[in-house]
Amino acid sequence: MFKVKILTFGKTKEKWLIQALSEYEKRLKSRFSIKWIFAKDEKHLLSLVKQEKNLICLDANGKEYSSENFSKNFFLSLENNQHQVTFIIGNDTGIPSCVLPYSKELWSLSRLTFTHQITRLILLEQIYRAVQIRNNHPYHK
Amino acid sequence: MFKVKILTFGKTKEKWLIQALSEYEKRLKSRFSIKWIFAKDEKHLLSLVKQEKNLICLDANGKEYSSENFSKNFFLSLENNQHQVTFIIGNDTGIPSCVLPYSKELWSLSRLTFTHQITRLILLEQIYRAVQIRNNHPYHK
Repeated sequence: MFKVKILTFGKTKEKWLIQALSEYEKRLKSRFSIKWIFAKDEKHLLSLVKQEKNLICLDANGKEYSSENFSKNFFLSLENNQHQVTFIIGNDTGIPSCVLPYSKELWSLSRLTFTHQITRLILLEQIYRAVQIRNNHPYHK
Repeated sequence: MFKVKILTFGKTKEKWLIQALSEYEKRLKSRFSIKWIFAKDEKHLLSLVKQEKNLICLDANGKEYSSENFSKNFFLSLENNQHQVTFIIGNDTGIPSCVLPYSKELWSLSRLTFTHQITRLILLEQIYRAVQIRNNHPYHK
């Protein structure tokens, strides 16, 4: 079982997003435990981050991957770290700078800025796609 | 009134996505007419494309923008073309090559591949964000 934690600010509010996320969690659940952790503020986020060993921050200015390379690096990160990885999705000003010293890597899902709510969906779909790529499944042609 | 057409394959199927898209369409409707056109296949897409004057293809390998530059170029494109622009979202193999000669520009929303369904949401949110950036609205910090 692979363990993915996603640290982010505020709960998922929109009903459509809750539905979308649960659809991808359902598809992943045979091999992935997805755990959402909601920080109240930067101080709370920092206290959560200090417990993490394999932290990847998501920021528009981070390293960009194709989906194939995202898949490769995602599984590499899991395999090198006891099958665990923790992502942080920042708030509207990005990743708080106090958190960066605890981060192993800075990845970017796009040069565009998205709402942090939509970023949750993009990340989860990309994790699902990463699995399909690894399995040579036609989901990712 | 600005006119945005979005050409894509297949209808929007997921209920959550229909809800999400209608939320952004509602927010845009005072100044934007958003028209979705669903192509049955490549031949049909090609016949639709031939009528378009200001066509932008969305492809993972296209030009990447920050949200600020997306906003700038989006409004520039509208203003230079009678307030009209047409986007194409490709299918799982990207933009069909037969369509490319009719395209003015090739833009990328990300180096990652997304489902063409999720791409609809990302594009619409980015158009909404483009408007907020132009208006100096705090939606885009």
